[in-house]
Amino acid sequence: MSKIEIKTANEFKEFCETLRASEGYKDPIAFGIARVDKGQLDQDKILQASYAAVSFKENFLSAAAIIWALSEDGISVDFNGSEFVAEFSQRAAKKAWKLLGVFKDEMQTHKNVEVVYNVKHALEEQKNVGKFRVVFIFEDTKPLSVEVVYLKLYLLSLQKAPLRSLVLDGAFGVLPNVAWDANSKPIELEWLRQNEVNLKMNGEYPTIVSVDKFPRYLSHIIPCDNTRILDSAKVRMGALISAGTTVMPGAAYVNFNAGTTGSVMIEGRVSSSVVVGEGSDIGGGASILGVLSGTNGNPVSIGKNCLLGANSVTGIPLGDKCIVDAGIAVLEGTKVYISKEERGKLALINPEFKFEKEIYKGLELSGVSGLHFRQNSQTGQITASASKRAIKLNEALH
Amino acid sequence: MSKIEIKTANEFKEFCETLRASEGYKDPIAFGIARVDKGQLDQDKILQASYAAVSFKENFLSAAAIIWALSEDGISVDFNGSEFVAEFSQRAAKKAWKLLGVFKDEMQTHKNVEVVYNVKHALEEQKNVGKFRVVFIFEDTKPLSVEVVYLKLYLLSLQKAPLRSLVLDGAFGVLPNVAWDANSKPIELEWLRQNEVNLKMNGEYPTIVSVDKFPRYLSHIIPCDNTRILDSAKVRMGALISAGTTVMPGAAYVNFNAGTTGSVMIEGRVSSSVVVGEGSDIGGGASILGVLSGTNGNPVSIGKNCLLGANSVTGIPLGDKCIVDAGIAVLEGTKVYISKEERGKLALINPEFKFEKEIYKGLELSGVSGLHFRQNSQTGQITASASKRAIKLNEALH
Amino acid sequence: MSKIEIKTANEFKEFCETLRASEGYKDPIAFGIARVDKGQLDQDKILQASYAAVSFKENFLSAAAIIWALSEDGISVDFNGSEFVAEFSQRAAKKAWKLLGVFKDEMQTHKNVEVVYNVKHALEEQKNVGKFRVVFIFEDTKPLSVEVVYLKLYLLSLQKAPLRSLVLDGAFGVLPNVAWDANSKPIELEWLRQNEVNLKMNGEYPTIVSVDKFPRYLSHIIPCDNTRILDSAKVRMGALISAGTTVMPGAAYVNFNAGTTGSVMIEGRVSSSVVVGEGSDIGGGASILGVLSGTNGNPVSIGKNCLLGANSVTGIPLGDKCIVDAGIAVLEGTKVYISKEERGKLALINPEFKFEKEIYKGLELSGVSGLHFRQNSQTGQITASASKRAIKLNEALH
Repeated sequence: MSKIEIKTANEFKEFCETLRASEGYKDPIAFGIARVDKGQLDQDKILQASYAAVSFKENFLSAAAIIWALSEDGISVDFNGSEFVAEFSQRAAKKAWKLLGVFKDEMQTHKNVEVVYNVKHALEEQKNVGKFRVVFIFEDTKPLSVEVVYLKLYLLSLQKAPLRSLVLDGAFGVLPNVAWDANSKPIELEWLRQNEVNLKMNGEYPTIVSVDKFPRYLSHIIPCDNTRILDSAKVRMGALISAGTTVMPGAAYVNFNAGTTGSVMIEGRVSSSVVVGEGSDIGGGASILGVLSGTNGNPVSIGKNCLLGANSVTGIPLGDKCIVDAGIAVLEGTKVYISKEERGKLALINPEFKFEKEIYKGLELSGVSGLHFRQNSQTGQITASASKRAIKLNEALH
Repeated sequence: MSKIEIKTANEFKEFCETLRASEGYKDPIAFGIARVDKGQLDQDKILQASYAAVSFKENFLSAAAIIWALSEDGISVDFNGSEFVAEFSQRAAKKAWKLLGVFKDEMQTHKNVEVVYNVKHALEEQKNVGKFRVVFIFEDTKPLSVEVVYLKLYLLSLQKAPLRSLVLDGAFGVLPNVAWDANSKPIELEWLRQNEVNLKMNGEYPTIVSVDKFPRYLSHIIPCDNTRILDSAKVRMGALISAGTTVMPGAAYVNFNAGTTGSVMIEGRVSSSVVVGEGSDIGGGASILGVLSGTNGNPVSIGKNCLLGANSVTGIPLGDKCIVDAGIAVLEGTKVYISKEERGKLALINPEFKFEKEIYKGLELSGVSGLHFRQNSQTGQITASASKRAIKLNEALH
Repeated sequence: MSKIEIKTANEFKEFCETLRASEGYKDPIAFGIARVDKGQLDQDKILQASYAAVSFKENFLSAAAIIWALSEDGISVDFNGSEFVAEFSQRAAKKAWKLLGVFKDEMQTHKNVEVVYNVKHALEEQKNVGKFRVVFIFEDTKPLSVEVVYLKLYLLSLQKAPLRSLVLDGAFGVLPNVAWDANSKPIELEWLRQNEVNLKMNGEYPTIVSVDKFPRYLSHIIPCDNTRILDSAKVRMGALISAGTTVMPGAAYVNFNAGTTGSVMIEGRVSSSVVVGEGSDIGGGASILGVLSGTNGNPVSIGKNCLLGANSVTGIPLGDKCIVDAGIAVLEGTKVYISKEERGKLALINPEFKFEKEIYKGLELSGVSGLHFRQNSQTGQITASASKRAIKLNEALH
């Protein structure tokens, strides 16, 4: 076991760079230290992983320090797998602190340092032993562990990795389906079953708030100051709720790997894989279809400053400043009439698009900007025209 | 007071069969032992009843054992009423245990035995005295007590009795309207009023999560492992959420005496009395009308493998493999055009149905399979054609 | 410091009338004593104010008594500002009690007396010191403090002031955006950020239920006995939920400064500024547009006994007994055909309205009674006819 002493940031840097240069070493794409919740019946089963800091293509020296600390604890990281997860013990935490402790006065800006500091302290209490995991991703392939799925969800929700950019295939298979209690703690359904009689007859049956594989976004993520989520049930962990976005409690919903790239008003459904651009307004009950339902796998992006009217349905990607009128459904197969005059106006907005006919299928209009979809209330015809209305979110609300 | 000693399952059986054969004795249709929550002001008012086991047309020997235990406690069951509710005291619990205790090593499979065992223990603590009720239903008529309404809701939610099969008329009148706190405990509204000043000024006003006559499904029922309910507010007690069903948190809702018969994706409203068949997908914001709103009392069943598109409205029963396109409303009075060609195809799927005309009212198409309801986006005409699309729930989600 | 002794209600009245008659004195429009929640980081920042009693154009003598008590505590109320907020200390509470204590046997009917009594007692405990504010509104202009915004929200929710009657401009700017925990306590987002690592690594991160400037209605208001709100997330503080109203948990939502004037079934969205009349039924997913989205600032009122069908959208004010069919959108610009025959029938119901043409814009039909909006399912035409259907909420539900 090596005996080292690190006293300055420079010594830290030198030491860690040496580690990084060693044979077989590989920088992780992402890493973090998580506190985990384990199964009540099966203590080897991880039900949830909570991170206070995650790194994505950054903090490679801290990663090296942690990897060294693991080796000092007898754990050698396998750099060849796509991911590596190990217990982060008190011994490892102490070793890591020998290196990272050099930054102890800068913890607010070095979150990994603060994490190691807090974990080291927490591990002085018996109840916290066995609760921590260090998690590395070396290759972005199908996640194999609960800890890695959570790490990826954090990367998406914290806008470290763009929406749709991470491989989440198989995540549903990896995550256990659990009951979440009023304190956001996961409980195995089988444990509830085995203890139902005792709990109920003693008046101690827990309040179950949801049953799902995913936790809620607000159980893990702190939104920006000007961001509002009126009901925590409405946003799944792994969603991206950018600064300035408001999620109302009516029919709204934002799934994982979906969200907003700026200030957006959400009163409708933002399905998995949907990305909504800054300044757009998703009206009450408006539905944006996800890849899992009716879009043939084409993820839908909504451009900037669009307005999706109340109870409208959008199944195609939209460019900027589009309007879908209340109650209208614009799907891939929806036939849309555009008059010659309107085609002229739209051609100016979309110089790259060839407007050559009267009737378009919805899918053909994917990504076109400035479209205003309407239904003629006297003939029932769905039409598109050039959108005149400038869509502004009411400033007073933000 | 009789002195008996039961040492074997056979002796138990013999003893209970004798009881059942006694004059005037009647097997209950359903029974259970509940822990009750009482009014804060009116201790005689039952606000909620929690069962850990309920029996429906089964466990007649256990029922007899409990009825005998009551008689030993001085309570004689009235077999002539439609229901019978009595306090289950420590004395009754001990007496019942004299009989049921013979199964003490098989409690996991004999839930009623486990219940009596736990109640007996709970009653050793003063705080639990007066908290238990034994509840029998002898005839399925209008429920007269809170305990019986809850027993019926359990029978529905646990799939012991089919949806719509139990008499719930008058249940709204029997159940008190209460405030439910964050621990799923019911509080009388009048108690809140009387204590508002004191509670608020001391910072002790409770968090009220809902005000309703019904509790939430997840406060009483443990779903199957592959079942998901992302927001407990979305499912009322008395709903049936079959294995494999997912209830999303957007606009979804499942009322009591409504639900699914298999794996179903629910992102819309399943109103009271609606039954949805296995493999169907209720899209975001889709509404299925209940008997209380616009269906003239005909409860709506949705067949297997149907797809109700986002924001569609369905007010008629559908057969299997039907599709209602996004945003379309198909009500009893909606006129639907079916072309000759499509009628030919549909006749093959529905040999018993006479397709003899071009225009049908929605109601006339009740229960027909393979219909695909659309609105022509150029003429506004609502049409039905033969559904080509095979509706499969994405397997990756389950 | 004056030395007074009040022994009878008459003495109290005389004393307070003298105060009211003093030069420069002005009766407040509204007042109340609130318990406040302060910032975790910034103790000068008020995050929430809870009132157990609020007065609106009433209880002027109690107001005078409290103003006198403040002056005895060295605080002189500024009658010239639009509002006045001051700490209500133990000294002030004791002084106020010297006057109001004369009613100590009638506290249930004199809520302000009960409040002062409870505050006086609470302030005997150190933890409650600094927690109380006395709040006066002298002029109904833009609120300048969190305490006054809350006071106005209470006046609306308690039906003391009519919806839309109070000035709330700038309220969004005054209220801080905070995280609300499972006990309805507000937490500064910045405090969460600063403590995230420590809280998460020790398993003590709080459950966050919403992030919003507004609290939930049910955290402050006790509904009437026959009123139901199935999900507290669905109603923002400042909404008016009149006796007999039911708010379902599907797509429903009631914003602040919006609500019902009687028994109403709400399964859709009641946006800010919308008022729904007694006996109306807002169907599942129905949207009523608010002034902030698409109504050009004309607040929408829905008359009595109207039915808004499932997934309908209404952007114009409706008279009584109107029906908007399921899935239909009636906006200001929607063209609506009314046949000559139907115009005749409607003219009888609306003698003041001139029916002179076939096609009306939605906006032109604002406030007309007895309209039944439909879409012809064979031609796509939106029509209005005289509503035949009497809309009754199912009595069994109430």
